Amino acid sequence: MKNTISGLLEINKVSTSKIDQVDFDNLNFGSVFTDHMFVCDYKNGAWQTPKIVPYGPLTLDPSARVFHYGQAVFEGMKAYKDDHGDTYLFRPDENFKRINKSSERLAIPEFPEDYFFEGLNTLLKLEDAWIKPGVGNSLYIRPFVIATQASVSASEANEYKFMIICSPAQSYYSGDVSVLVAEKFSRSASGGFGYAKAAGNYAGQFYPTKLAKDQGYQQIIWTDSNAHEYVEEAGTMNVFFRINDTLLTAPISDRILDGVTRKSLIALAEKQGIKVEVRPIKVSEIVEAVKNGSLKEIFGAGTAAVVSPVKAFGYKGEHYELEKQDNSYASHFKSALMDIQYNKAEDSFGWRYKI
Amino acid sequence: MKNTISGLLEINKVSTSKIDQVDFDNLNFGSVFTDHMFVCDYKNGAWQTPKIVPYGPLTLDPSARVFHYGQAVFEGMKAYKDDHGDTYLFRPDENFKRINKSSERLAIPEFPEDYFFEGLNTLLKLEDAWIKPGVGNSLYIRPFVIATQASVSASEANEYKFMIICSPAQSYYSGDVSVLVAEKFSRSASGGFGYAKAAGNYAGQFYPTKLAKDQGYQQIIWTDSNAHEYVEEAGTMNVFFRINDTLLTAPISDRILDGVTRKSLIALAEKQGIKVEVRPIKVSEIVEAVKNGSLKEIFGAGTAAVVSPVKAFGYKGEHYELEKQDNSYASHFKSALMDIQYNKAEDSFGWRYKI
Repeated sequence: MKNTISGLLEINKVSTSKIDQVDFDNLNFGSVFTDHMFVCDYKNGAWQTPKIVPYGPLTLDPSARVFHYGQAVFEGMKAYKDDHGDTYLFRPDENFKRINKSSERLAIPEFPEDYFFEGLNTLLKLEDAWIKPGVGNSLYIRPFVIATQASVSASEANEYKFMIICSPAQSYYSGDVSVLVAEKFSRSASGGFGYAKAAGNYAGQFYPTKLAKDQGYQQIIWTDSNAHEYVEEAGTMNVFFRINDTLLTAPISDRILDGVTRKSLIALAEKQGIKVEVRPIKVSEIVEAVKNGSLKEIFGAGTAAVVSPVKAFGYKGEHYELEKQDNSYASHFKSALMDIQYNKAEDSFGWRYKI
Repeated sequence: MKNTISGLLEINKVSTSKIDQVDFDNLNFGSVFTDHMFVCDYKNGAWQTPKIVPYGPLTLDPSARVFHYGQAVFEGMKAYKDDHGDTYLFRPDENFKRINKSSERLAIPEFPEDYFFEGLNTLLKLEDAWIKPGVGNSLYIRPFVIATQASVSASEANEYKFMIICSPAQSYYSGDVSVLVAEKFSRSASGGFGYAKAAGNYAGQFYPTKLAKDQGYQQIIWTDSNAHEYVEEAGTMNVFFRINDTLLTAPISDRILDGVTRKSLIALAEKQGIKVEVRPIKVSEIVEAVKNGSLKEIFGAGTAAVVSPVKAFGYKGEHYELEKQDNSYASHFKSALMDIQYNKAEDSFGWRYKI
């Protein structure tokens, strides 16, 4: 059935939902998708009518630019349901601004704000049954843009597809992870596009991560590509260190993603009177801190995992274990952030966005 | 119709060729494709039966990893037809080795050598009518691999597609180009994957190139990401400088593509007694050389353009023009290489590969 429920969007609903086939207690992250998806094509110099259509495969020419030149950006967001059945997003304006910042760096046309929010709102209302209540449950939302123009000429495309797909999620990581500090491989270059959520920033991480796994580590702490002297990110997350009672994280740059969770944790910490230092952090400083006992915690911060505690790290052939903390900042921040996300705490920053 | 003509391949030919619809005198690079394509799927831990099928669209789930994490590599090759109607490739073993080297860095499973060459040979025999004789005409061949697994989990995929598509080509660049030396943007990082023909290396170049175009330059000369002190590549090609009668090019590294044309030019030059220096080249050295008149030529080298002469470059707000040379190395090497490629000269290096 086809009906238009807004001035902007064209909507084509499924006749039967597939939700009954989904086991919500055993979800693999990012592999089950909801009934509908949001699609908007860019051609002839303009974004065309945005549509919500049944979730289904894309048909693309083998020469579509995304396959050859990686012209693709994305975002990661979550929808949370509170105990009253209301659905919230967390700072979606940040994701909207960032996908366009990423697009600009990859020579992809920016997406209109009203299309984005109207699309999100309409899609999430349609998929309400897929957003399960209960802290930890969420609907992972993946907006992305791909270059669809059929031609292998190495330049920016003139046709694109902006899409939003949604996947019900439980928690992303289970347990504390061990990480390996990068001494050879790098994630991004100064003057590159490490700050963008661009497809090309991810593919290069898989091989070094595979090698790290062979050594018993689950993720990599990325360091600067010049000398591997400064810590930058952890896996696909921003990284925080707690030295005594001070929280440290690297400043954002053209190599480091301006993470929404990262900036939210900094704001939360500062509000709660926890000292935060946003400055370049030397690996040597972290090694010294673990040796003298002042390094209390390391954790990653990102939308998928929220906060992901690190229990050990490897560097230059040495393995360093962190002691379990009673008053862990990682678990404190995770709870504080999730309380806001699930509408269980006051939202003094105005971060919640009601659907 | 479906018939198997080899022990390895499954072949499904088109019933009617579309070749009559193609204007071979007015081809846009990489936008017209031949009747067939080579496809081989990787799943359940193995490359499946390779197939040649009618050229046509791919159907992929919106969550296919290539759209999100840029797990994609490719190659660029050409088939040349000589005056007797025989078809040749140029050093295809180099392309085969390199696509697997690229794949390794992107955690993509390596492709079997016999599948690659049997696929190429069979496909090119089928598309014989698409390979036009005459120097300058060629069939551009694009092998590529994409991650097809449906799931947005940020790790290497367990399903892939290896494909070869072919596009009839005339010459790639027309005329000499002006290039801008990068002072802010970078192409790749030490410890990254700049040496790989990975999709993610290209998307990041379009925006800086667009900005350069606004200043009247067609391409960028990439410099090191640390200090923008050394020249690395030109656009999507390797770059050569001629100072007096010496040829200079940067050594390959993990940031620089090991170009087949690059290494062929070095071999040709050395054989002809032209002095070649493969060493780090400072931008300041090039600026000094253009000022004192010893910089005779700059040119890019790559499969698509073969040799692409540079007539001017911009650096730190200054514009430097190069004088036209009577005995240009660029045109000498272009002819010498094309004579080998089109079977018009002795192939003392054993570079030609007959189909």
